[in-house]
Amino acid sequence: MEILVYHRGEHRVSEGFSVEQLPELLRDQSNVVWVDMEAPTEKDEQVLLDVFHFHPLTVEDCRENRHYPKVEEFSGYIYFIVHGVRADTSPDRFNTIELDGFLGSNYVITYHHDMFRSINNVKQLLRTSPVACQRGPAFLLHQILDQVVDFYSPVLDDFDERIDQLEDEIFTLKRPNNQILAEIMDLKRSVLRLRRISTKQMDILLRMSRGEFHLIPEDMRPFYRDIYDHIVRVTDLAENYRDLISGSLEAYLSVVSNRLNEIMKVLTIFSAIMLPLTFIAGVYGMNFDNMPELHSRYGYAGALIVMIVIAVIMLIFFWRRGWIGRGEPEG
Amino acid sequence: MEILVYHRGEHRVSEGFSVEQLPELLRDQSNVVWVDMEAPTEKDEQVLLDVFHFHPLTVEDCRENRHYPKVEEFSGYIYFIVHGVRADTSPDRFNTIELDGFLGSNYVITYHHDMFRSINNVKQLLRTSPVACQRGPAFLLHQILDQVVDFYSPVLDDFDERIDQLEDEIFTLKRPNNQILAEIMDLKRSVLRLRRISTKQMDILLRMSRGEFHLIPEDMRPFYRDIYDHIVRVTDLAENYRDLISGSLEAYLSVVSNRLNEIMKVLTIFSAIMLPLTFIAGVYGMNFDNMPELHSRYGYAGALIVMIVIAVIMLIFFWRRGWIGRGEPEG
Amino acid sequence: MEILVYHRGEHRVSEGFSVEQLPELLRDQSNVVWVDMEAPTEKDEQVLLDVFHFHPLTVEDCRENRHYPKVEEFSGYIYFIVHGVRADTSPDRFNTIELDGFLGSNYVITYHHDMFRSINNVKQLLRTSPVACQRGPAFLLHQILDQVVDFYSPVLDDFDERIDQLEDEIFTLKRPNNQILAEIMDLKRSVLRLRRISTKQMDILLRMSRGEFHLIPEDMRPFYRDIYDHIVRVTDLAENYRDLISGSLEAYLSVVSNRLNEIMKVLTIFSAIMLPLTFIAGVYGMNFDNMPELHSRYGYAGALIVMIVIAVIMLIFFWRRGWIGRGEPEG
Amino acid sequence: MEILVYHRGEHRVSEGFSVEQLPELLRDQSNVVWVDMEAPTEKDEQVLLDVFHFHPLTVEDCRENRHYPKVEEFSGYIYFIVHGVRADTSPDRFNTIELDGFLGSNYVITYHHDMFRSINNVKQLLRTSPVACQRGPAFLLHQILDQVVDFYSPVLDDFDERIDQLEDEIFTLKRPNNQILAEIMDLKRSVLRLRRISTKQMDILLRMSRGEFHLIPEDMRPFYRDIYDHIVRVTDLAENYRDLISGSLEAYLSVVSNRLNEIMKVLTIFSAIMLPLTFIAGVYGMNFDNMPELHSRYGYAGALIVMIVIAVIMLIFFWRRGWIGRGEPEG
Amino acid sequence: MEILVYHRGEHRVSEGFSVEQLPELLRDQSNVVWVDMEAPTEKDEQVLLDVFHFHPLTVEDCRENRHYPKVEEFSGYIYFIVHGVRADTSPDRFNTIELDGFLGSNYVITYHHDMFRSINNVKQLLRTSPVACQRGPAFLLHQILDQVVDFYSPVLDDFDERIDQLEDEIFTLKRPNNQILAEIMDLKRSVLRLRRISTKQMDILLRMSRGEFHLIPEDMRPFYRDIYDHIVRVTDLAENYRDLISGSLEAYLSVVSNRLNEIMKVLTIFSAIMLPLTFIAGVYGMNFDNMPELHSRYGYAGALIVMIVIAVIMLIFFWRRGWIGRGEPEG
Repeated sequence: MEILVYHRGEHRVSEGFSVEQLPELLRDQSNVVWVDMEAPTEKDEQVLLDVFHFHPLTVEDCRENRHYPKVEEFSGYIYFIVHGVRADTSPDRFNTIELDGFLGSNYVITYHHDMFRSINNVKQLLRTSPVACQRGPAFLLHQILDQVVDFYSPVLDDFDERIDQLEDEIFTLKRPNNQILAEIMDLKRSVLRLRRISTKQMDILLRMSRGEFHLIPEDMRPFYRDIYDHIVRVTDLAENYRDLISGSLEAYLSVVSNRLNEIMKVLTIFSAIMLPLTFIAGVYGMNFDNMPELHSRYGYAGALIVMIVIAVIMLIFFWRRGWIGRGEPEG
Repeated sequence: MEILVYHRGEHRVSEGFSVEQLPELLRDQSNVVWVDMEAPTEKDEQVLLDVFHFHPLTVEDCRENRHYPKVEEFSGYIYFIVHGVRADTSPDRFNTIELDGFLGSNYVITYHHDMFRSINNVKQLLRTSPVACQRGPAFLLHQILDQVVDFYSPVLDDFDERIDQLEDEIFTLKRPNNQILAEIMDLKRSVLRLRRISTKQMDILLRMSRGEFHLIPEDMRPFYRDIYDHIVRVTDLAENYRDLISGSLEAYLSVVSNRLNEIMKVLTIFSAIMLPLTFIAGVYGMNFDNMPELHSRYGYAGALIVMIVIAVIMLIFFWRRGWIGRGEPEG
Repeated sequence: MEILVYHRGEHRVSEGFSVEQLPELLRDQSNVVWVDMEAPTEKDEQVLLDVFHFHPLTVEDCRENRHYPKVEEFSGYIYFIVHGVRADTSPDRFNTIELDGFLGSNYVITYHHDMFRSINNVKQLLRTSPVACQRGPAFLLHQILDQVVDFYSPVLDDFDERIDQLEDEIFTLKRPNNQILAEIMDLKRSVLRLRRISTKQMDILLRMSRGEFHLIPEDMRPFYRDIYDHIVRVTDLAENYRDLISGSLEAYLSVVSNRLNEIMKVLTIFSAIMLPLTFIAGVYGMNFDNMPELHSRYGYAGALIVMIVIAVIMLIFFWRRGWIGRGEPEG
Repeated sequence: MEILVYHRGEHRVSEGFSVEQLPELLRDQSNVVWVDMEAPTEKDEQVLLDVFHFHPLTVEDCRENRHYPKVEEFSGYIYFIVHGVRADTSPDRFNTIELDGFLGSNYVITYHHDMFRSINNVKQLLRTSPVACQRGPAFLLHQILDQVVDFYSPVLDDFDERIDQLEDEIFTLKRPNNQILAEIMDLKRSVLRLRRISTKQMDILLRMSRGEFHLIPEDMRPFYRDIYDHIVRVTDLAENYRDLISGSLEAYLSVVSNRLNEIMKVLTIFSAIMLPLTFIAGVYGMNFDNMPELHSRYGYAGALIVMIVIAVIMLIFFWRRGWIGRGEPEG
Repeated sequence: MEILVYHRGEHRVSEGFSVEQLPELLRDQSNVVWVDMEAPTEKDEQVLLDVFHFHPLTVEDCRENRHYPKVEEFSGYIYFIVHGVRADTSPDRFNTIELDGFLGSNYVITYHHDMFRSINNVKQLLRTSPVACQRGPAFLLHQILDQVVDFYSPVLDDFDERIDQLEDEIFTLKRPNNQILAEIMDLKRSVLRLRRISTKQMDILLRMSRGEFHLIPEDMRPFYRDIYDHIVRVTDLAENYRDLISGSLEAYLSVVSNRLNEIMKVLTIFSAIMLPLTFIAGVYGMNFDNMPELHSRYGYAGALIVMIVIAVIMLIFFWRRGWIGRGEPEG
């Protein structure tokens, strides 16, 4: 548990307080107190109950790690859950990490089981320019949420790139393979997850920016609306990617279907040329006594010529149907 | 019919009352009376009408067993139907069991035709820590509903596992078979059923947690909101599973389609190599008198060499198209 | 036109009144008058205009037979259209029959072109237990609507059974045939029709049970809510059946696709075994002078052995790919 | 520009007024003035601006011909656009024609670029029974809109018939052809267009019948509700046809897929019977010296018998799989 | 940065002011000041903050170039983002260009990174008829937005034409190729993008035309409603195009599937005719001693006749099934 305090009078941030000092720090309404709990112990959780008197269910929700984003107002504080992007996320396996938190009249609590990049960034920011805290805890929370949402942007770019790459792969596909299919499936799952999370997050920020919570004052609303705009964009793009990915699947299936056409054409062309020729050869391989052609001087040559003529006719037939010729068959 | 009474003054739960004692127990508003009817008799139902004066239609609804979850307010009591997970449920055959009930100012009635695990759990809990009843009947009902919703979690895990397993099966599929298809169908049906039930349940809990019913007091609302959050998660996951299962079907169809490609490639390669060779053999099997090659010393060897050359050209042709080589054909 | 009158004071139902007596019967507000018009004549319709003074457009709506369920309030009466299930309906051809009606302060009018089972049932009921009328015309209407909705249940069971049967047929399908396809199409159309009708009917009953119409008094609302619950179930099941039927279509297409795989495997296996063997036979059927194998003592036996070896290799190749063996190919 | 005036006092309709008389006619509030502009000139449009003082944008909207149905209220008048069915419309090419209009306290203006059947019908009606105008301009407008909506009915019947016919064609399809596909596409486009138009028209009539516009008095509302009911039916049927047409496409694709199965079966049966026989013939066509069967007396007959036995075995094999026999292969 | 000022008293537009004159120009409420910033410098942005005192977040939003259309009200001004069509847009690659702006009581600010056609058009218009400014800044903004929306029309026509052309290509398709598929994909993506943008733009104009912003006075609302109608049409057509394009994809897949049928028919016909003939030739190529037909005088002729008969029977068989004959096979 790390405690950062901004002293409004002195325009500076100080750190390194102990839990015991918390009640006193909170009593001074001019302070902005940020308590960040990373991988909290049971003792830390006890602080939430004993010092802040949060509802036991919210503390339990913090401890569990399977919640969707939400925000709830209690008398004197707001409880929220948002999801940040995991550092090791990739388009094939989109993963989020839960951030729980509380916003009070002069404090912000953040609670997370693992290292959280956005939190670290905001801490760094506060240390270098403490003035960011001057506008109160709602602005501090805005800073944190802004960072959380900002980390979605590179993920979206990764999706963009991955889908582009996938489409290239599909259209230059040598052979239909299940691997591409599995990739499409993974991407789809990731995008659906992204959309689900960001839709819920969008809803939270809409409520925050609409002035539903009195702890977020009127003049803070444009800042929250700004984050809201960002997350709307994330949701819109997720929707867009979903469309593109289902388009990719259609393209893949269609490419596979085109290849089957190509394969069957090759087979048909070979069969249609070879079967008649083989038949003619078979005819003159018959052992009838009375086959005058066999004894003709030009019989053999004649048979060969007939065969060539048939082959050429076949080739012309298929060429006119557009089955052969004009560059690579896969167009 | 089992009657449990929590005596608020004495902080204890007593059991074993008879039907005749009910009116007296109910008269004392400091009691919290829980009447649990498992596989109720006609006499039990008569109690609902005569002692509690519930609307005859609600008692009829209890008796029937084909209702969806719902909640209705009457003057002085709430009537609700929720669905618990059957003990013998499985991802292929998701089944629910109906729990009807009434909530009054100082009582909770539960009514079910079969053994109900959640009910048994709450009874056990009450016997060990009667204090759970101190917060009144709305809290007791919350305990029951919480248990009902908790039993959905293992089912969701089963779905998760089953879908994962299915996808593995599909991508390592040896031959397309109708059994996998039937499994996908069964899973889909189960998930649709789960989603339908949990959506309706979600609606009930939303109304309960929003303070629509005055029998659920203000301070109980966070507890109901907590159950609501759980059931939202169930619904969301059901939605998610539906997407995954329809993805599985697409994957299955695509894998089958890939296999057809593979089969046709094998056929085409065999035909395209064998047909020309057979044709050449046919040519030299012809019985023309005047076929100089036949009498040449190297005729036979020459013919064999031509055949090998043709076979090699064909193999190269198909290898360059990516139809043969590079590991297993199913990629 | 049949007129049934319940005399509230005398607790009995009397019949056989003539049109001329209607105004007098209606004047007595303690009467509950039910006028049922089956296959009405023009004279009957005139009664609606002259005696009851209904809006001419509603009477015209009655006469026409192409309306969807609806309910409209006019000053002093409600006009409604509901759809009952035709007696000759089947899952492949779901048909409804229109019932028009009016509800006034002390009367119910029902108007239908053909025999209507629900109406007959309620008449029968009234004759045996006239007390059902004591609660006034709104309760009488509830009885009729309850009967109308009850007749949907056997239809739903028929759908259930038919879809089960269809799925069995699909999975044991000997050959793809257009008949199953046509059946799926018919079922789908029926279910869409059922859903359309019951959705509209649901809307009507929701409005009736919410107390929108003052002619349906407060204490009648649970009864209408009960019918509403039934029709919600019908709609939900129709939705469910729609999902199942589109699942059936997917299953059918997939089974057809599996069969194509099987067919192509048979062809490929035959070709891949026979073509090389035929080629070898062709080689030794060539007429070259210098073919030493031909004159060897074991040439013939050797050629046969080579052929058998090739056939066995091919069989092993296909067996290892899972194309042959292990029970029936259709899994 | 044609001007019809109903003189309320004299119960008659007179015609043949000039533009100059318009202001005077309008000043008499007991008149109902109908100005119909077919293929209006610029001078006509000037009347709209100068005499009626309509908003310039609405007059511009009239002139343009690419608007969707809409209704807008201005102070003193309503401006509306509705779409009628073109006389030359067909299920493959559904076309509408725009009708613009204004409704004032004692006038109705209709504006259309081409001949409009509904307008002509209402004019005819007025001339024969002028009483229709007695209820004022809102009733006159109702008459016009009623006619407009009535002309959708034959179109719906045409769609019905066309879709039935299409399904018959699909199920008795001799060969898959792109023409049926193109027809399905055309029908789908028409139905989507019909649905789009009628949905917008539905919205207009809903607003008109709900009493949103004070120029449509209370007692006119049932008449507008009646038109609304008709257009709801049109929209519902359009929705229905959309479902049927996408069902047709599925059926077509499935029939094509069944045919491929049939084709492949024919190929496989021929190959599977002929290839082994040809192989046997090939074996006895080999030129080995030491082939005792060749010199046996019954060698030839034996070979033929073996061939027949193989052919019969093959036929039984395919017959037991259900590939041959039992009537027409297309089931 | 270009400054145009309309002096209400003098009915003229003057240009060429410097930034320093701005405060004075704005102080005179009878002026209508238009500040257009094309590719603004940092100094220009400073003007937004220092002279106009806009919220810093809005200025930041201007600078960034990845926003969706939106409108936000601040005290004293409205901030909006709309998207215009890029000049180089095409149906395969629909692109928009962002226009940010502010509307105040006597000014309009437009801000764009690149040349913006609509802006140039309105400037041109003002110079020729300055009276357009007389109705105030809201009317000026209406002029700009009207131009922006007008530029969507040619794009829609391009889409129309492109889709028509695509369908023609599909139905006259010589060989399935991935290029058409890629085109369908590109078009679909463009249309989805167009729909997304225009839906958001529609929402903005709905809010502007409904009188949500007091800076847009009552009498301006019909003008904004007019633009709204245009953008509704754009959105509707985008929806329509989306339907048509997914119809095209279905058509393409179906055409490909028809071609596979054709290919397989060709193969099957060739095989079914040639295989039996080759077999017969094979039989009479056998070397049995005792084959009486071989020594018959008419043996050879007889064999040939049998072959011809078989070929004819096969042709009749396929002709009766409708596989051959009657014009081009692709129907």
